[in-house]
Amino acid sequence: MIQYFKPFTFLCLLFLGINFRAASQETIASKLGYPADAKLLIIHADDLGVSHSENIATFEAIDNGSVNSASVMMPTPWVLEAVNYAKANPETHDFGLHLVLSSEWKNYKWGPVSSTDKVPSLIDEHGYFHEACRSDLNLKEVELELKAQVERAYAMGLEPTHLDTHMGCLAQTTRLTEVYLKIGQKYNLPVFVLDEFLSKEIKETYHPKVLVDQLYTISPEDYSIGPETYYTNTLKNLMPGLSLLLIHTAYDNEEMKGMNVDHPEWGNAWRQKDYDFFTSKTCKELLEKENIKLVTWRQIKEALY
Amino acid sequence: MIQYFKPFTFLCLLFLGINFRAASQETIASKLGYPADAKLLIIHADDLGVSHSENIATFEAIDNGSVNSASVMMPTPWVLEAVNYAKANPETHDFGLHLVLSSEWKNYKWGPVSSTDKVPSLIDEHGYFHEACRSDLNLKEVELELKAQVERAYAMGLEPTHLDTHMGCLAQTTRLTEVYLKIGQKYNLPVFVLDEFLSKEIKETYHPKVLVDQLYTISPEDYSIGPETYYTNTLKNLMPGLSLLLIHTAYDNEEMKGMNVDHPEWGNAWRQKDYDFFTSKTCKELLEKENIKLVTWRQIKEALY
Repeated sequence: MIQYFKPFTFLCLLFLGINFRAASQETIASKLGYPADAKLLIIHADDLGVSHSENIATFEAIDNGSVNSASVMMPTPWVLEAVNYAKANPETHDFGLHLVLSSEWKNYKWGPVSSTDKVPSLIDEHGYFHEACRSDLNLKEVELELKAQVERAYAMGLEPTHLDTHMGCLAQTTRLTEVYLKIGQKYNLPVFVLDEFLSKEIKETYHPKVLVDQLYTISPEDYSIGPETYYTNTLKNLMPGLSLLLIHTAYDNEEMKGMNVDHPEWGNAWRQKDYDFFTSKTCKELLEKENIKLVTWRQIKEALY
Repeated sequence: MIQYFKPFTFLCLLFLGINFRAASQETIASKLGYPADAKLLIIHADDLGVSHSENIATFEAIDNGSVNSASVMMPTPWVLEAVNYAKANPETHDFGLHLVLSSEWKNYKWGPVSSTDKVPSLIDEHGYFHEACRSDLNLKEVELELKAQVERAYAMGLEPTHLDTHMGCLAQTTRLTEVYLKIGQKYNLPVFVLDEFLSKEIKETYHPKVLVDQLYTISPEDYSIGPETYYTNTLKNLMPGLSLLLIHTAYDNEEMKGMNVDHPEWGNAWRQKDYDFFTSKTCKELLEKENIKLVTWRQIKEALY
């Protein structure tokens, strides 16, 4: 396995254009009340809690835009703001946990939820998570920290609708993916994971009940052509089945410029463009014109778990 | 002792208008090369590290305004940005440590530098510092955490010029003050502490080498009249001896509005006003007209430690 990834590049390499279909998928559409060939889509904003800008832009994109799901990073400084939004919208929010094992920005940092002396392999010399995903983490410590993140969410009053993995760190190795699935099983939560990284043995042990058919997330190359073009093409060419569109919505303000310094990819301008598209009339009209049905992890959880 | 203080009110109650003079003070002026009756002033910005806004506004107020000293909160998310500024200005910065035992904002939080399971009395149910200063903290845990904050600073490459106490938490009880002075003695650093809270015994044990004659910091009442009036009067009526003026400089932007939500006192508008005055021509002219000599903790440290 690759030992060190630059921040963010992993998710992109892993996810872009990957198309897989599990035999069981037809049951998801029917269990959600749609025909088997319906185009089902989750428009999912990552990184809640990471900054005030990310939080308030995402709340707006949910309240008045087309974003219908998001996930929260429990170790981040602004997590309480995201939790308070969820509590104020107990039935309608669709917030999962964006499980965190990295602290990737230059001047702005966070560390584990668990006591740092219990998870030495997860932290750098200053007690923060490592900058990049790592494949050499102690698996017992990973499990301890992931449990701590889930338990912290429940303790704060957030009942997550699903689990996913920040920067794809939990898809680094089969063993990390196994820990990830184990956590999903323990808390009876849908886990977003790629079919092709699951061995037969792992599938038989953890039997994930839902598999996403198509996953889309914008790459630096697509971004350079233009996010509106990428997102328009994605929606126009959406395949039948369950699709997941991962985005990052924030306002391009001073806070985000400081956070994203020296890292334009997945940075402030990028996140503002995501916000712009997914709060636009163009997006809403496209979803309707293409007969795309927005579904949430909450609906999936309630139907299958 | 009062058990629980509302955030920020303590500092104000404690410091405002307090005027004391130690017999040894004349030596400070002479050791710094000034006559005994010189008006010496440290214009000190608290809370570096607390937010990107606070950092960049304070850097600007130091680079081009009249602020000449500041202190850094090691447990905060943006501390690396402050440390990197200090490293880029190794000779000229005057950054001490604003020792932290509280996490006072509603939706934006931080916790101890030390492992949380080593300092249970310092944290709330979610592992953050308590919202307010507390007088019932375990003193061994306080000492452990303060050492961890100082050690973290050195490990990051910041050599602090002094120590002070965020929200005055370390002036809550004589015993807390004793721990605070012990840390100063251990690392041979000037400690900002109020003379009137020091017993004869504590003085003989820790013999602080420097005592501030006058301490000024704006109160909510002064703020309501107008910060410019308060600061102008303060500078016009500055007494001879060593004075410390504690301020908080930040830009009143979205990040600060989010951080200071439900807490206008010491909040975003307030910090912008502090920034405005201490980057103004008015302030610079007043300092010159009143023959006020700006001195730093670094100068004091080099002269007396």
